[in-house]
Amino acid sequence: MDYNKAALELHKDLVGKITVNSKVPVKTKEDLSTAYTPGVAEPCREIHNTPQKVYDYTSKSNLIAVVSDGTAVLGLGDIGADASIPVMEGKCVLFKEFGDVDAFPICLNTKDVDEIVRTIKLMEPVFGGINLEDIAAPRCFEIEAKLKEVMDIPIFHDDQHGTAIVTTAAIINALKLGKKKIENVTAVINGSGAAGNSIAKLLISFGIKDILMCDRTGIISRNRRNLDKYKKELSELTNKDNKDGTLADAMEGADIFIGVSAPNVVTKGMVSSMAKKAIVLPMANPTPEIMPDLAKEAGAFVIGTGRSDFPNQVNNVLAFPGIFRGALDVRASDINEEMKRSAALALAESVGDKLNVDFILPRAFDEGYMEKIADAVKKAAIESGVARI
Amino acid sequence: MDYNKAALELHKDLVGKITVNSKVPVKTKEDLSTAYTPGVAEPCREIHNTPQKVYDYTSKSNLIAVVSDGTAVLGLGDIGADASIPVMEGKCVLFKEFGDVDAFPICLNTKDVDEIVRTIKLMEPVFGGINLEDIAAPRCFEIEAKLKEVMDIPIFHDDQHGTAIVTTAAIINALKLGKKKIENVTAVINGSGAAGNSIAKLLISFGIKDILMCDRTGIISRNRRNLDKYKKELSELTNKDNKDGTLADAMEGADIFIGVSAPNVVTKGMVSSMAKKAIVLPMANPTPEIMPDLAKEAGAFVIGTGRSDFPNQVNNVLAFPGIFRGALDVRASDINEEMKRSAALALAESVGDKLNVDFILPRAFDEGYMEKIADAVKKAAIESGVARI
Repeated sequence: MDYNKAALELHKDLVGKITVNSKVPVKTKEDLSTAYTPGVAEPCREIHNTPQKVYDYTSKSNLIAVVSDGTAVLGLGDIGADASIPVMEGKCVLFKEFGDVDAFPICLNTKDVDEIVRTIKLMEPVFGGINLEDIAAPRCFEIEAKLKEVMDIPIFHDDQHGTAIVTTAAIINALKLGKKKIENVTAVINGSGAAGNSIAKLLISFGIKDILMCDRTGIISRNRRNLDKYKKELSELTNKDNKDGTLADAMEGADIFIGVSAPNVVTKGMVSSMAKKAIVLPMANPTPEIMPDLAKEAGAFVIGTGRSDFPNQVNNVLAFPGIFRGALDVRASDINEEMKRSAALALAESVGDKLNVDFILPRAFDEGYMEKIADAVKKAAIESGVARI
Repeated sequence: MDYNKAALELHKDLVGKITVNSKVPVKTKEDLSTAYTPGVAEPCREIHNTPQKVYDYTSKSNLIAVVSDGTAVLGLGDIGADASIPVMEGKCVLFKEFGDVDAFPICLNTKDVDEIVRTIKLMEPVFGGINLEDIAAPRCFEIEAKLKEVMDIPIFHDDQHGTAIVTTAAIINALKLGKKKIENVTAVINGSGAAGNSIAKLLISFGIKDILMCDRTGIISRNRRNLDKYKKELSELTNKDNKDGTLADAMEGADIFIGVSAPNVVTKGMVSSMAKKAIVLPMANPTPEIMPDLAKEAGAFVIGTGRSDFPNQVNNVLAFPGIFRGALDVRASDINEEMKRSAALALAESVGDKLNVDFILPRAFDEGYMEKIADAVKKAAIESGVARI
């Protein structure tokens, strides 16, 4: 199927993918008087007197913004705010369909970190959460950190944390199949941008033995010069033996390969140099770091990609709707590390006894897994003290 | 009916009045691949290559923001952005129900003019228009003027121009009934805030003979000291004989009284001092400048208020949905004076042969008038060169 052509027609026919609808019938003068003036003054007064009641009387309780500056859109790169809208609307559609979350696209015509932060801060009243999307690294890290500081609602950069949660769930299940414990395994992450950074931190929080991060130059070690502050931080959290070398050097003997980088940068030889029962997750889109059949021939035990035409699709849609569903349900002030860890565990567990090397994650349209994630996130929010209900 | 109680229950039961919905079914892998990746990249590329195509492929073509800073909300005043949300959501509901316009509330946590302007400018990509709402004068004038300068989509402050358009339509019809020509009549406007300012300017553009503007101090004349720049401008546009005096002095002999001020500030004596076939529009909400029965007793010919429980409700909902409907339909870059004038004329004409002293405007739920406004606005946009389709 030619998805490009079909997508163009769909977008043109519908003229955009989202609508804003009313929950209230407005068919009589009485309807007008309760949904609008004069009756509407009463919920206004209530919120003015007790600010937290904004969650009782407005759409904030189920509404998030999908915010982008259009600098790192899909494989398209820095295409600008206008051209990013179809993706952001698509994300909003997925939030609604998979999580019953009302999501609205906010595409900002600036790349200035402080301006983006200030703009989102000013819009805070109507939203119960912010999903950052397709903002280039390293600006995405700064924007996220600053927003978390100044805002009172959850901030979640899906390209980082959504990817990390789904990847970690895949690894938890693949390790289970290989009868390995996470404390005893090492991983190589090729690509140290938004996704790679967050995957590394989440795996570390699960107690992984060691990680080697690679970028275009090779292994990120503490010997490297001119690392930006985010890579420098990674160099301190990973690479216990402070190795230098190429991606091929890094993969030798590793239990796990995670690719969030570029097409075809991994060879069969590199895969066959890995430890037994190797887990290979080449997730570059649309062309992975190594095609699944080649990885299989090279002896990989479990293989997952970003593609829907191979088994084990590692797809963010498996997590973000459930995560925000859970956070909104308890009016969370944050999506914290405990909530992310719980989401990864719940997603992994949702596979249940169907688990096998070609089925380490549910598929997007499977039943039940999203509710499990939402419940786990809710519980973690309550236990970690960020719930407000 | 106790609208306060009913409104509180309604808002609590529904938890807000708006939802964001998907126009696209997402039930299969194929749906995902056209609404989202990989297919969505194609409309992104098209927009990147031809920016104006953002209207073909995104919701921008039917989407506006209802923007407020919560400083002049209904009769409640400066209650802040959070507490203003129920009103802004209500406005969005009316846009949808009466004009099929998708409207989204943006409530901004700042009162700084430049910050509000900058924030709205940065959000421009997703919106096809901006409706400013409940922003206190004189900041509303400055914000509107600056936005019109920097933005490429229509900016419309409904409290000014919506009120002016509906009031002017009422006056056009009332003058018709009284067999008076607008060039020969004088009006008194009590209240020189957002609404009063815009009503004055629209009546002037229709060629009214003279206007006396009043504020709490009395008639605004060129003798007055310490007028802010907006009142100073009004003092130059009105009051040809540069009169000083009280509201009572102003009303003596006037053909039209327009109240956008405070309850019960007009007496029967003041109404009976007006010219024959006096048009009295005391529109303060919920209690008018003079109650309709008193104005009637004092000899008023046509009376209109803001209330739905008396004849001739002068209600903004009669105009704003149709105005944006027309502007969006032709991808207008502005809502200019020609479009406002056309809207007022179309609204007046829509009453047709039902016109009588107790029916100078359609009622909100009447059929047909909104389409007439939209068509007139569309036509005026094309003729004045701001249409882009």
